[in-house]
Amino acid sequence: MLPPSFLESLSAIVGPEHLTTDAESRQAYGTDALKRGVPADAVVLPADTAQVSAVAMLCHKHSVPLVPRGAGTGYTGGAVPSQGGVVLSLERMNRILEIDEANLVAIVEPCVLTGDLQDAVERLGLFYPPDPASLRISSIGGNVAECAGGPRAFKYGTTKRYVLGLEAVLPSGEVIKTGGKVVKNVVGYDLTQLLVGSEGTLAIITRIILRLVPRPPVQATLRATFRDVEHAVAAVIQIVRARVVPAALELVDGESLDAVGRNLGVRTLAPEGTGALLLIEVDGVPAAVEEEASRVQEACLEAGATEVLHARDEEERQELWRVRRELSMSLRMVAALKLNHDVVVPKGRIPQLFQLVARIREEFRLRIPLFGHAGDGNIHVNIMVDPTNADEVARARAAERVLFEGVVALEGSISGEHGIGFSKAPFLALELTAGEIALMQRVKAAFDPTGILNPGKIFPPVH
Amino acid sequence: MLPPSFLESLSAIVGPEHLTTDAESRQAYGTDALKRGVPADAVVLPADTAQVSAVAMLCHKHSVPLVPRGAGTGYTGGAVPSQGGVVLSLERMNRILEIDEANLVAIVEPCVLTGDLQDAVERLGLFYPPDPASLRISSIGGNVAECAGGPRAFKYGTTKRYVLGLEAVLPSGEVIKTGGKVVKNVVGYDLTQLLVGSEGTLAIITRIILRLVPRPPVQATLRATFRDVEHAVAAVIQIVRARVVPAALELVDGESLDAVGRNLGVRTLAPEGTGALLLIEVDGVPAAVEEEASRVQEACLEAGATEVLHARDEEERQELWRVRRELSMSLRMVAALKLNHDVVVPKGRIPQLFQLVARIREEFRLRIPLFGHAGDGNIHVNIMVDPTNADEVARARAAERVLFEGVVALEGSISGEHGIGFSKAPFLALELTAGEIALMQRVKAAFDPTGILNPGKIFPPVH
Repeated sequence: MLPPSFLESLSAIVGPEHLTTDAESRQAYGTDALKRGVPADAVVLPADTAQVSAVAMLCHKHSVPLVPRGAGTGYTGGAVPSQGGVVLSLERMNRILEIDEANLVAIVEPCVLTGDLQDAVERLGLFYPPDPASLRISSIGGNVAECAGGPRAFKYGTTKRYVLGLEAVLPSGEVIKTGGKVVKNVVGYDLTQLLVGSEGTLAIITRIILRLVPRPPVQATLRATFRDVEHAVAAVIQIVRARVVPAALELVDGESLDAVGRNLGVRTLAPEGTGALLLIEVDGVPAAVEEEASRVQEACLEAGATEVLHARDEEERQELWRVRRELSMSLRMVAALKLNHDVVVPKGRIPQLFQLVARIREEFRLRIPLFGHAGDGNIHVNIMVDPTNADEVARARAAERVLFEGVVALEGSISGEHGIGFSKAPFLALELTAGEIALMQRVKAAFDPTGILNPGKIFPPVH
Repeated sequence: MLPPSFLESLSAIVGPEHLTTDAESRQAYGTDALKRGVPADAVVLPADTAQVSAVAMLCHKHSVPLVPRGAGTGYTGGAVPSQGGVVLSLERMNRILEIDEANLVAIVEPCVLTGDLQDAVERLGLFYPPDPASLRISSIGGNVAECAGGPRAFKYGTTKRYVLGLEAVLPSGEVIKTGGKVVKNVVGYDLTQLLVGSEGTLAIITRIILRLVPRPPVQATLRATFRDVEHAVAAVIQIVRARVVPAALELVDGESLDAVGRNLGVRTLAPEGTGALLLIEVDGVPAAVEEEASRVQEACLEAGATEVLHARDEEERQELWRVRRELSMSLRMVAALKLNHDVVVPKGRIPQLFQLVARIREEFRLRIPLFGHAGDGNIHVNIMVDPTNADEVARARAAERVLFEGVVALEGSISGEHGIGFSKAPFLALELTAGEIALMQRVKAAFDPTGILNPGKIFPPVH
């Protein structure tokens, strides 16, 4: 528990109405989409960078753990305490400060919802491409802290490609600026890109300068179905060989399709015997889009697609995307707990990843629907668990390690989008050497010498 | 001077034929395109990562400065000693190890020439976009160490956007791997992007995993001329507002045009009274390129272009690019020494940058032709100096500081492409706060605690 004098100092910084210590708030800010975590001892809602700095300075002085938090939608516990302390929620810092059309730049506070930013720039004919599934509920600051991806990452890249500069508060309270409004800047080390994806362990991001691009005027959406995932991946490779870069290239497996079908109460969403489905979207100027869509169609048919649908209008387009949109909700019907792992392998190795998961399904007797971003080789492996079934939970935990080991053996990575947080921290050494982890810890110490900022994240717990 | 026993140990690592200590080699490896530097005490040419590691370990043990070097074409002295020691030239590590067409990835050793890599991937219908002017003579490792740009950066981004993973040797000799073959990886800190642009001060890059894209099938090239730079920049803004992203958007000022004209012995390269010229290239699928080219033409005419030429074939295209290609050589005829500064400002502020340079020209009585990447706001400010004229050299040095201060005041950066090396190190504090510099020095210490790796670079000299 925090001493009363400390709480008084916190209250003096943010104002009493923006400090809470009641049990409900402490619990609410002690959890995120992972649904695990430790309650906060106190929650503060600063109004601006100066207050963030003052809170950091205070926590630093008293060696109190400090956990920055955006919208709290992460899957790895990045925004929740692992050992109590102060949760610093940035929710009041939620303004779009500037959209500079001539320089294709937006400047935002961290708790703008990503979808709101997209709407605002699209009204001006501009485009902020990263599109995590959570975009309507997740904050841009959280997206930056975790380096969020999404379907469009295949063509447009993930969040990091759009971050030009940051304002951030070090654990000492010092305010730094990195990068700026210019797209090229090689003055000193690229601390901007180091902070992107650092999961709130190096500094608290208080302002973000984002690069925008022109909004692509049209999209074409196709849906191709296949007997099995091998054929679907063959189509992905064929599309790449046809030198088309779709804006999205999403893969959904048979088990996921079944779940959506059951949830929607329809017998089937795709031709009988469909083992894998690809959703493909190309975007750009109309003439180019037509040409690319027909090359995609051809590539899918060459790879053995059983059917290729091409949406002709917005309504048809929304209908094709429906299966993908309904996925998360449908899987919730399968089991109460979804261990959602965003593993990634070189895309040519997706079939081997599916074989690995098939072996895991059998060995550990688990339901594991798969879907994800096939273009990037980034597949969401959803281990479905009844949390009241201790044996199933134990089997799921054992399966996780086998999955991660297998992914690393395929030259892949245990996280492509969600980060490590505390839930994947025990597995870090599967992918990184002891020397690489020690180097990262020295980098951490360069920012946070006393280790108060978001402790217990990324690095394996010391036993 | 290095003791004989140290040299014997070096020789044992790389073989006597790959260690040189003669005056000529020491001098040659003690300079780069900046034409300043301190001779090396010894030059080693390791064959592989193991030898690089052994050399680092030896230098570390004996606290001998170690300077990694690619092709030695940099403009800021990044690859040359500032205080003697060992220059480690990676020139023997020059193989393309793999081009993986299905995964759109190339794996290369650091001393592959960038142009050779581009040729190799283009033969397969693929594309490595970064195109520094030095691409026929600079190495990909040097491009990564400095985060090289080039005209195509406006559409495609600079080198950093293409680096997926690295193998690198720490000053201790430890070999680390960062990133990998996958385009998404959020496991731990992004050391890949931290190493890109770190100018050989953190680690020695020994292997590079690069992302490739499909080669755009066609280009269209346009040349637009304007009375003055204000009108040219208005055209750039107009092109952006027309939501076209050209692959290149190059600006050449009147003084540069005059230099090329004199060098080629032609009276003029452009209509009488041309104060600024834009070279614009759009690329993509044919239908889209035609549409975008006509939108570019329209935007230029609306902004007051005096003439817009549109190349109809490869020969015309090469003719339009000729003025840009001849620039460097032509400026060499203007004066023996070119202080080439790659400053960058938000592109809407290019006219203010030109006004600043006009004032500097007058105040310091200097010839300063300007050209550069208008889309990025990255303008090469070339202060032309007769190195035998001490007064002119002094005026040029004084002008540099005024230029850099002015650029920072315009929310710009003192280097967009060339890095800091030692030539710009005294100016770092114009752009970064003392706290930001101290933070970067702590990051440096995380990699290089004893400070043997490329000392005297990036950070301001301590007096």
